Amino acid sequence: MYPKSADARFDFRYYVDKHMPRSIELLSVHPGFRGVSVERGAAGAVPGSEPAYVAMCHFTFTTADAFLEAFLPHASELQGDMPNYTDIVPTIQVNEVLISR
Amino acid sequence: MYPKSADARFDFRYYVDKHMPRSIELLSVHPGFRGVSVERGAAGAVPGSEPAYVAMCHFTFTTADAFLEAFLPHASELQGDMPNYTDIVPTIQVNEVLISR
Repeated sequence: MYPKSADARFDFRYYVDKHMPRSIELLSVHPGFRGVSVERGAAGAVPGSEPAYVAMCHFTFTTADAFLEAFLPHASELQGDMPNYTDIVPTIQVNEVLISR
Repeated sequence: MYPKSADARFDFRYYVDKHMPRSIELLSVHPGFRGVSVERGAAGAVPGSEPAYVAMCHFTFTTADAFLEAFLPHASELQGDMPNYTDIVPTIQVNEVLISR
């Protein structure tokens, strides 16, 4: 999750056309891959207000270990690509899915 | 998204067994409903570190307006139920889904 700030840079074209397709190409071949969602922050709770995050990406895997197995071999390439679309330091967290429909 | 803090209260049993099933029951009947994910924050980027959010819920609808149409008739019931599981003020934002697989 990329926190929004007034002077932060985020190139959605590069992110959606280059960075995320490459990330998905590399990570989705792992047998634990279950899905991915890439989202642009549109507003806060009040329509027209600023969202807390300019963008979010959610990868779903069978386990946190499966994600690490898929990601770590490509971490340097994918993290090294980040300056090409943003100067924001993302907030990263691992979640356990409790309900999914 | 419910920010984690040391003294915050969050009752996952109530949230997962009562609050979210009722929310899903009420919102999923709208024709714009596409899905929902309820998640527990397990760790930050570093295994064993604290996640930024203790819990997250993502509702997916065809449009932001469809979500509001589904949610607003039940806002008082659902928001009124929040003190039964938490004293955290959630961070709410509306996202546009750019990639979904």
